[in-house]
Amino acid sequence: MDIPAQPSERWSDMTQAVANIGVVGLAAMGASLSRNLARHGNTVAVFNRHYSRTQTLISKHGDEGTFVPAQSLEEFVGSLVKPRTAIIMVKAGGPTDDMIDALADLMEPGDIIVDAGNAYFKDTIRREKAIRARGLHFVGCGVSGGEEGALLGPSMMPGGTDESWNTLGPILKSIAAQAEGEPCVTHIGTDGAGHFVKMVHNGIEYADMQLIAESYDLMRRGLGMDPESIAEVFEEWDKGDLNSYLVQITAQVLRHMDAKTSKPFIDIVTDQAGMKGTGTWTVQTALELGVPVTGIGEAVFSRGLSSTPQLRQEAQNKGLGGPKTEGAYSALIADPKEKEAFIEDIRQALYASKIVAYAQGFNEMEEGAKVYGWKLDLGAIARIWRGGCIIRAKFLNRISDAYDSGEQFGSLLFDPFFKKAVEEAQDSWRRVVARSVEAGVPVPVFSSSLAYYDALRSQRLPAALIQGQRDLFGAHTYGRIDEPGAFHTLWAGDGSEVKQD
Amino acid sequence: MDIPAQPSERWSDMTQAVANIGVVGLAAMGASLSRNLARHGNTVAVFNRHYSRTQTLISKHGDEGTFVPAQSLEEFVGSLVKPRTAIIMVKAGGPTDDMIDALADLMEPGDIIVDAGNAYFKDTIRREKAIRARGLHFVGCGVSGGEEGALLGPSMMPGGTDESWNTLGPILKSIAAQAEGEPCVTHIGTDGAGHFVKMVHNGIEYADMQLIAESYDLMRRGLGMDPESIAEVFEEWDKGDLNSYLVQITAQVLRHMDAKTSKPFIDIVTDQAGMKGTGTWTVQTALELGVPVTGIGEAVFSRGLSSTPQLRQEAQNKGLGGPKTEGAYSALIADPKEKEAFIEDIRQALYASKIVAYAQGFNEMEEGAKVYGWKLDLGAIARIWRGGCIIRAKFLNRISDAYDSGEQFGSLLFDPFFKKAVEEAQDSWRRVVARSVEAGVPVPVFSSSLAYYDALRSQRLPAALIQGQRDLFGAHTYGRIDEPGAFHTLWAGDGSEVKQD
Repeated sequence: MDIPAQPSERWSDMTQAVANIGVVGLAAMGASLSRNLARHGNTVAVFNRHYSRTQTLISKHGDEGTFVPAQSLEEFVGSLVKPRTAIIMVKAGGPTDDMIDALADLMEPGDIIVDAGNAYFKDTIRREKAIRARGLHFVGCGVSGGEEGALLGPSMMPGGTDESWNTLGPILKSIAAQAEGEPCVTHIGTDGAGHFVKMVHNGIEYADMQLIAESYDLMRRGLGMDPESIAEVFEEWDKGDLNSYLVQITAQVLRHMDAKTSKPFIDIVTDQAGMKGTGTWTVQTALELGVPVTGIGEAVFSRGLSSTPQLRQEAQNKGLGGPKTEGAYSALIADPKEKEAFIEDIRQALYASKIVAYAQGFNEMEEGAKVYGWKLDLGAIARIWRGGCIIRAKFLNRISDAYDSGEQFGSLLFDPFFKKAVEEAQDSWRRVVARSVEAGVPVPVFSSSLAYYDALRSQRLPAALIQGQRDLFGAHTYGRIDEPGAFHTLWAGDGSEVKQD
Repeated sequence: MDIPAQPSERWSDMTQAVANIGVVGLAAMGASLSRNLARHGNTVAVFNRHYSRTQTLISKHGDEGTFVPAQSLEEFVGSLVKPRTAIIMVKAGGPTDDMIDALADLMEPGDIIVDAGNAYFKDTIRREKAIRARGLHFVGCGVSGGEEGALLGPSMMPGGTDESWNTLGPILKSIAAQAEGEPCVTHIGTDGAGHFVKMVHNGIEYADMQLIAESYDLMRRGLGMDPESIAEVFEEWDKGDLNSYLVQITAQVLRHMDAKTSKPFIDIVTDQAGMKGTGTWTVQTALELGVPVTGIGEAVFSRGLSSTPQLRQEAQNKGLGGPKTEGAYSALIADPKEKEAFIEDIRQALYASKIVAYAQGFNEMEEGAKVYGWKLDLGAIARIWRGGCIIRAKFLNRISDAYDSGEQFGSLLFDPFFKKAVEEAQDSWRRVVARSVEAGVPVPVFSSSLAYYDALRSQRLPAALIQGQRDLFGAHTYGRIDEPGAFHTLWAGDGSEVKQD
């Protein structure tokens, strides 16, 4: 489609309130989202700070649907029908704040501003409050699925008022991924609920990816398998309980060959995992809420440790010693049956640890809902994660079943299906951790998830000793199992006990 | 010592600039610190919001030294010689801010306000900036050792200007704990440095306590030993590498009998460990700084899990299943020699894990120093922790040796002494974790510390796979081991590689 060099003259006549939705910011994600909207029958106003990006979008993809390009923000707002609905897809932080303000200045009460970036949920709460005071709606909307998802169907987690959802919901449903015939979007809750849930989604993604990485490492270093053989294992796993996007792309990455060196791609990539902050936020927020998310925590710390090349090089230089039994897997490698059995153990360990990671993430959402006053439908959240997003997996049907049945109370691990799954997997899980520890291959998320499971099911924990120590050195008091109240022992005195007021 | 009912008439004549130091807030910690100061020849102005507390202090302990009680804050400030130096020991948060403001209003340029509470270091940075703008000095001072330490000699970590240290240093040295003839106080650095270091101190304390708790649990649940026998083991351990205050008080707590029930005290205490926030801050800050503190993280999460009685009760009700091999320790119990050997394994595991926890905590201080512009003398910090504070231990001499020698680079684990210690302990450490995992006794800090050690010494980590996944689903790019720059593979295209600008 051709557009004139000075398109404003041509388009300005048309920009009188014809678009039912607008997108501000046409970098990769914004452009894809705009195209997805246009492809699904929406009339999409588009604006970018540099007009050339808008021109590129129109010239390349203008024939995919109806776009209304604007050269100025005023023109953009003018092209939207009321209630005006504008999705912001610009850089997080300052640029987002600036764009929200600029839009709010041009909009009228009842209009809707949507921030579809990865904002920190407390920023979203703050922004929603400020925008609401001006009579407008502010929707913090988590979007998962990357560039491809934005174009072909993402999973979306919008927060905000019911009124804004009435307008925005049908539009988002038109572009969302579909999972078993249902669109992967639901109204999460008020103010920051959408970005909170997206944050936890990403935290779970960190744990899931690290678990897959640990499984790979055990097959690679532990069993001495080559990347292609490991890819085959992941392809096999994808047919069962572990069926998921991440397992599929793992096989794809492992099969990929580097053209330059003719080596497996995985062997030429630097082993320093990057991160952009949502995993860190998930753990920091969990700490604030007092919810243990040990699997996600270890996954975030693992990325952190991987990305300290100097420290790790120095460890190589110093030659930190490993176990005498390093290579304890060699017996397994020699015996094909034993090897097969151990691969199945790894699969079970991955499955059980993954259940724990989800249980912890869902606990964080439950607690967040209490503290921030959201009514989260956890079953619905599991359903909208079945398609479009990075952690999409059949597995999520089981989670929505658990929450919909109301049979779980307090933890996914109590749901009959998951309880049985973990109980059946646990012998394998324990063998994998024990074996890895003996052989010196780190499995931080496998082992911390197992420790969480064993602590959760402990009738009595050694935390009693910690309470005794704290009372002794800091008079922090303790509870008694046989009497309510707080007590202090006169440790430096006659050892008698004093009940506190 | 008798004081009149209206002591202000008697004392007011004396309150003309005679005190070299003052204390505001005479609850447990403030009263003890005042007495410690008075006992060491300081003339101590004292003020409390309710005068009755001041009266109690003077009537009970007035003969321990020279106190100058004040009925008003004006009188208190008036009684201090210049540069006036006032230590605040009131509730953290709002009350501390209010008292700082009130004091600053009454003071003059060059005077010194000391906050000796457990403030969050970012609050201290903010307060120091505000007070400095008014020409006064603000010192955030970490104090460890509890009430007893405050009275008999705490370990102290003051931040602030060199000028304030010139005045305050000799006073703090007069009351600090002594370790091998040296006072346990040093000038940590500017603004929030003192409270930052105190925060990490507490984080390490969390890990240390949890490691002791895991060791106890293994002997109790794993080996079926009674509390008294376990106390004997800790007393024995206290004679060697593990010599420390926390090990000593563990034995004391385990030996203590409950008078009401004639049962071991440890068995009547509820197993829900409390916390006051410094551990949580340590982990949140480490996440912000990108420093893995896995041991401290697991310790904080363990306390959190212990304090969810409803969740844990539900786990009991549902009967989450344990391993078939639960009670795998029974063979050990039957054979006294095996049992002894396993107890020695636990000791080695505790020692190695403790070294990892300290290594991680010291890494957090190193990184914090870079980010916040402090020059931390880590050897000196280890020295002032040898006495007075909760984590005091002989072990800290080795840490100060490591930093003083400059032989360590990047991690305590690289120091020859600690490297050897961990290498020698590792077989035991691995046996303990493997055995615990098989028997279903949770050892989250033992196992996460071991995973950290194995990851640190790994020549290649599976983080490479994570980078491949991230590039595939999010175009996050990756590095190559054979060429600088950032690269992206066209995963959905022809699989070729594009170098990024």
